[in-house]
Amino acid sequence: MSEPGPTPATPARIGLLGHGTVGSAFTSLISERSAALTAAAGRPVELAGTLTTTQGSFDEILAASDLIVELIGGIEPAREYTLRALNQGKPVITANKQLLAQHGDEIFAAARENGVQVRFEAAVAGVIPIIRTIQESFGTIRIDRVFGIVNGTTNFILSEMAATGASYTETLARAQELGYAEADPTEDVNGADAAAKMAILARLAFHTPVTLDQVEYEGIESIRADDLAYAKELGLSLKLLGVAERRPAAPPGAPGAPGTADATAPEGISVRVFPCFLYGGHPLAPISGPFNAVMVEAPEITEVTMSGPGAGGTETAAAVLGDLTSVLAGSAPVSEPREQLPVVTDVSSSFYLHLEVADRPGVLAQIATLLGDEGISVKSVVQRGLSEDARLTMVVHETPEPRFKAALQRIAELDLMRSPPRSIRVIEEAFG
Amino acid sequence: MSEPGPTPATPARIGLLGHGTVGSAFTSLISERSAALTAAAGRPVELAGTLTTTQGSFDEILAASDLIVELIGGIEPAREYTLRALNQGKPVITANKQLLAQHGDEIFAAARENGVQVRFEAAVAGVIPIIRTIQESFGTIRIDRVFGIVNGTTNFILSEMAATGASYTETLARAQELGYAEADPTEDVNGADAAAKMAILARLAFHTPVTLDQVEYEGIESIRADDLAYAKELGLSLKLLGVAERRPAAPPGAPGAPGTADATAPEGISVRVFPCFLYGGHPLAPISGPFNAVMVEAPEITEVTMSGPGAGGTETAAAVLGDLTSVLAGSAPVSEPREQLPVVTDVSSSFYLHLEVADRPGVLAQIATLLGDEGISVKSVVQRGLSEDARLTMVVHETPEPRFKAALQRIAELDLMRSPPRSIRVIEEAFG
Repeated sequence: MSEPGPTPATPARIGLLGHGTVGSAFTSLISERSAALTAAAGRPVELAGTLTTTQGSFDEILAASDLIVELIGGIEPAREYTLRALNQGKPVITANKQLLAQHGDEIFAAARENGVQVRFEAAVAGVIPIIRTIQESFGTIRIDRVFGIVNGTTNFILSEMAATGASYTETLARAQELGYAEADPTEDVNGADAAAKMAILARLAFHTPVTLDQVEYEGIESIRADDLAYAKELGLSLKLLGVAERRPAAPPGAPGAPGTADATAPEGISVRVFPCFLYGGHPLAPISGPFNAVMVEAPEITEVTMSGPGAGGTETAAAVLGDLTSVLAGSAPVSEPREQLPVVTDVSSSFYLHLEVADRPGVLAQIATLLGDEGISVKSVVQRGLSEDARLTMVVHETPEPRFKAALQRIAELDLMRSPPRSIRVIEEAFG
Repeated sequence: MSEPGPTPATPARIGLLGHGTVGSAFTSLISERSAALTAAAGRPVELAGTLTTTQGSFDEILAASDLIVELIGGIEPAREYTLRALNQGKPVITANKQLLAQHGDEIFAAARENGVQVRFEAAVAGVIPIIRTIQESFGTIRIDRVFGIVNGTTNFILSEMAATGASYTETLARAQELGYAEADPTEDVNGADAAAKMAILARLAFHTPVTLDQVEYEGIESIRADDLAYAKELGLSLKLLGVAERRPAAPPGAPGAPGTADATAPEGISVRVFPCFLYGGHPLAPISGPFNAVMVEAPEITEVTMSGPGAGGTETAAAVLGDLTSVLAGSAPVSEPREQLPVVTDVSSSFYLHLEVADRPGVLAQIATLLGDEGISVKSVVQRGLSEDARLTMVVHETPEPRFKAALQRIAELDLMRSPPRSIRVIEEAFG
């Protein structure tokens, strides 16, 4: 960003609290992405110190740092350290959902009083940028509802139970083996983790104080495999959903009760977490495995849905890195090329191919041979008679486009063709 | 944000260029959301002037404004006005994808030289915050690929063709009737609109200069209804996809060609727009109608998907409002309650209900009567014999939760019940 001056720029010094899964992934990431981070921050970025359970002194790290990244989790000493950093005018980036859900008022007040940033993208829905979106992109519209799947452990368990028919207990054990559930999964499976995240989202969406103890929550411990099986017959899939929404602050049945549209009713909000069936057409129905997804509804935006990995050390660390970049870069970056990458045009694709051909023996073989000669391999074919002609539709595996076009040209010239061949690219479930 | 001082805060003055669909929606929005905007900006926000095709002087509006919102579209005079504002140190917010795709280098250079912001969330994918996400949240990770559905008109047409079997021409006419396609739809249907958006996304994702003329694009004009029909048999759905991705800058077949993983190959990018079939399991396959969706892939985040309305006056204006809020608020906001909303807990829900009952005549009637007495209406039922017992699974329509719990209690006490009733909430396709 800045021109190289006569003296080297003073580095930005990060004090890192915590060196577990996320902390060590973050340490790797700032080293790997050092050049990009320096470009964005306009100065080098370095780790001033790391506090672990066995080494380091918070006082020394704070004194040596320009900002604090808090990844120790839990309430104390995370709360004390966060407040002390903010009160010294040092920005804090945290992934600590419980701290913000239980002591948000105190933390945010300290940040405002000291005029410093506190950022916490990693606290909710991992690498999905829902905090930034709600606070910044949607900061002045009137959000009606924020809801979604904000716990990856329970979504993995419910997806697996539905897919395999296994019991809750068996599936939890499997999730623990695979690293999708912790040794003590209580806070995930009883809904408390999701409740803390929803308290944070509700506070931001509705600009009103919300704390964890105001969130009603239920978990998934009592879900039975046969409920999932019967519900499938009804076209339903089960999710642990967090819902924060505006609601009239009036008893059901009264004017302005849920479902009615009395704009004069006093307004309240409802923040809840509960297992819940969704119909197949619901945008959250296809979100499976350890993924998270959050939807935001407002009259000005209709609805926006965001999904991605809900946890994972690297993904959570990437969310912290995004916050770090913003804190260091100050206001929004103005696009500035730091690379000069050539635009390449020779690519490979998979193709759908539609051929109308004479219905006589050997036609399929002739076309298959021609494709084989060009090194093009067929993935699937549907052949269908059509009075005197036949229709061949097929999908071919990824092949360099010039080679495919050459083959198409040769096919077009065959006397068995009844109309010009047609082709459309195909993308496999995952990119190659 | 700021304490009320002895003198009223100086308002932030917006110069608005253009008063078409988006411009007039934006004018309404800043008036409706005035209180929220003032809170976020820390001072009142007012419209200094509006330039339309028939009235207003750009010179006068620029002189009277602190920032410019450019919604006139096209290249000139939008380019000249944007550069003049930036060169006077005034931030610009624009929805103009063609301007940025064709003259991005010049615009961004002017912003950097003058140290002012240029924001353009509304230029790509409407209200989906993809620009902010790529530039800020993912600004320092190594993005491998950005791709998606970035044109709502063509996605509507393709969804309709697949659903109705109608021809391209018929469906385009219908899209025009419904307001999803413009009178002159050329730039949408031939892929040029999507190409401009992909040029912008590629520039930001890969930190490299990309202009519209480097994007290869194809449209949907030659898609035939029968291709869609046959492809359905193969489990495929058709989308107009924009893909920007890193590619080795080496010819196919050479070391480092597409599909190989030679990290030493010189690197390039590919930016393309083309109609394309997706397999059913692809995250973009369910995106239908005038919606947009964008996916970002990077090793640090796996993949993040964002979807929402791609266009619409209010939605596009909301994206402009988000940019305006950020420009006025400066760095990221620190959460500050501006409301005190009560948390309400008496809500209504739809429920799945699982009952194991004695298999004898009249059982279903008895339960249905009991539910009816409580004012609970049944949406669907599956009854199945199970030797001496029977299993009833049903979904009931939305009902106040206390009333449903009372009914559940009464059901539990019936002597025909063989085990305690089980219930799980259900969410209909759309919230009530």
